[in-house]
Amino acid sequence: MTAAAQLMKQMQEPVQPFAEWMRRVQVDMEAALERFLPAATATPVRLHQAMRYAALDGGKRVRPLLVFAAGELFAAPIAVAQRAAAAVEMIHAYSLVHDDMPCMDDDALRRGKLTVHVQYDEATALLVGDALQGQAFVLLTAADEGIDAARQIVMLHILAQASGSLGMCGGQAIDLASVGLNLSLTELEQMHKLKTGSLLRASVLLGAWSGKVLLQDEVAALEAYGIAIGLAFQVVDDILDATADSATLGKTAGKDAADNKPTYVSILGLPESQALAEKLRNDAHQALAIFGDKAQRLRDLADLIVQRKA
Amino acid sequence: MTAAAQLMKQMQEPVQPFAEWMRRVQVDMEAALERFLPAATATPVRLHQAMRYAALDGGKRVRPLLVFAAGELFAAPIAVAQRAAAAVEMIHAYSLVHDDMPCMDDDALRRGKLTVHVQYDEATALLVGDALQGQAFVLLTAADEGIDAARQIVMLHILAQASGSLGMCGGQAIDLASVGLNLSLTELEQMHKLKTGSLLRASVLLGAWSGKVLLQDEVAALEAYGIAIGLAFQVVDDILDATADSATLGKTAGKDAADNKPTYVSILGLPESQALAEKLRNDAHQALAIFGDKAQRLRDLADLIVQRKA
Repeated sequence: MTAAAQLMKQMQEPVQPFAEWMRRVQVDMEAALERFLPAATATPVRLHQAMRYAALDGGKRVRPLLVFAAGELFAAPIAVAQRAAAAVEMIHAYSLVHDDMPCMDDDALRRGKLTVHVQYDEATALLVGDALQGQAFVLLTAADEGIDAARQIVMLHILAQASGSLGMCGGQAIDLASVGLNLSLTELEQMHKLKTGSLLRASVLLGAWSGKVLLQDEVAALEAYGIAIGLAFQVVDDILDATADSATLGKTAGKDAADNKPTYVSILGLPESQALAEKLRNDAHQALAIFGDKAQRLRDLADLIVQRKA
Repeated sequence: MTAAAQLMKQMQEPVQPFAEWMRRVQVDMEAALERFLPAATATPVRLHQAMRYAALDGGKRVRPLLVFAAGELFAAPIAVAQRAAAAVEMIHAYSLVHDDMPCMDDDALRRGKLTVHVQYDEATALLVGDALQGQAFVLLTAADEGIDAARQIVMLHILAQASGSLGMCGGQAIDLASVGLNLSLTELEQMHKLKTGSLLRASVLLGAWSGKVLLQDEVAALEAYGIAIGLAFQVVDDILDATADSATLGKTAGKDAADNKPTYVSILGLPESQALAEKLRNDAHQALAIFGDKAQRLRDLADLIVQRKA
């Protein structure tokens, strides 16, 4: 059996415990990103080193986990899911690099490491983000690997929409404009649906599309799940920002309050925020009903997102 | 006859004089960009206004002209060429917005208007660039309009490669690293091949792919043409930067010398730079030989690129 076939067998083994599956996806994703990023020795060397610094060795890989968990619903070929997961993770990594820059959130610490503009310089950070976005689309347009072009186009469209001005970038713009304002709960939710929610939702859809052409009710169920975990993710982020310390988070804690940014905790208070996170976890579970047992990984991920400590 | 069919007829009319054809493409491109950019009233309004400020009403639209001229070689459907041209122009516009930022070239004037970070603010400029890049890929993944998915994937791959770290972004990184250095002519050429050349080359290829699946010798000829006009474009840029004034250029003149950036003029001197531009124009014409008369627009564009005054 080839290494890839072995991996595929291991990853699709239904009785594999969640924690082990998760660790395996994370290790596999690191190797995939290693392979899908331009080599550190390729010209221009400094840019490529900085791209790798930004994308490798960091984070919980929540988006790739969602891609793989959704991929399992429809037995997505590993190679297809890997590319989709790496592409989403590159978009996510680019957004972090740009968000951390002085003209945005001006943060020096990310995933326990110095941010790219501190470790390198601002111009390099700007280009790293730009090039990581481009590389995500290079990946998803690579020569066919077990998926027809029409499905590839759908996946590319989902990723492009989710990351642009009507998705992630739009959410970030609303976030910036909301500093010091009294947002309503609805406005806060709208902002997060775009800023973090759109890419999390896209991860779920990309994983599922990696397996097959989706039916309308499947899309609707996965959208509902994606929206619920997207909001849950942000509510928990706000709870952690208010309650955990920087060492645990790997980034500066208490920053939102210090920056006078509206959060779920600042609007709802801590106990109601925790109750909301629980409600959203429940919504996510409900949305998966039509998939039966096959959606267990997605259920486990919803639990993980709500119960995480960092 | 519908307006679209009429336009198609007009644009494919072979006896149409070059200047008139060019003006028509420019007007048409403005309307296409208007349509393909999110509305100025869409949330977040400020971001969308800034995206439109960056991409509309400016520039000579050299890349769209190349797309349409190459599209004429193979009777590309107007709708397909329009999307490709608008996508390339959005990538170009995003690169200008980011290049002008304080951490890069720190320029206040572009296309005769204030740059985006001056007119708006730095954070908005950063997001405008990010979102324009995303929007380019949204465009090229839109529901089928007269082109099969496999060809769409090839075009997406060409655009993603041309704009990433092995293309435009890579060239910009080399450019930044070269300030104050004594580059050899070969190093300077390598930098420009990536920085401006890769997107100009991509424009030519995208236009041709808009028409049909290309044969290897057609790709080779178009690549050779694209490389020649790409370098010619930069040589002429350097000549104009050294000889024209800011009002004519619509951007700050003499900036490269002031910034201690290596240019063709600083390495070769003015007369040799002018001779090189002529040689490259000739190379571009030669490369088109296999296409015969059908390539007249591309020949005219090579002439325009070398003879332009701004």
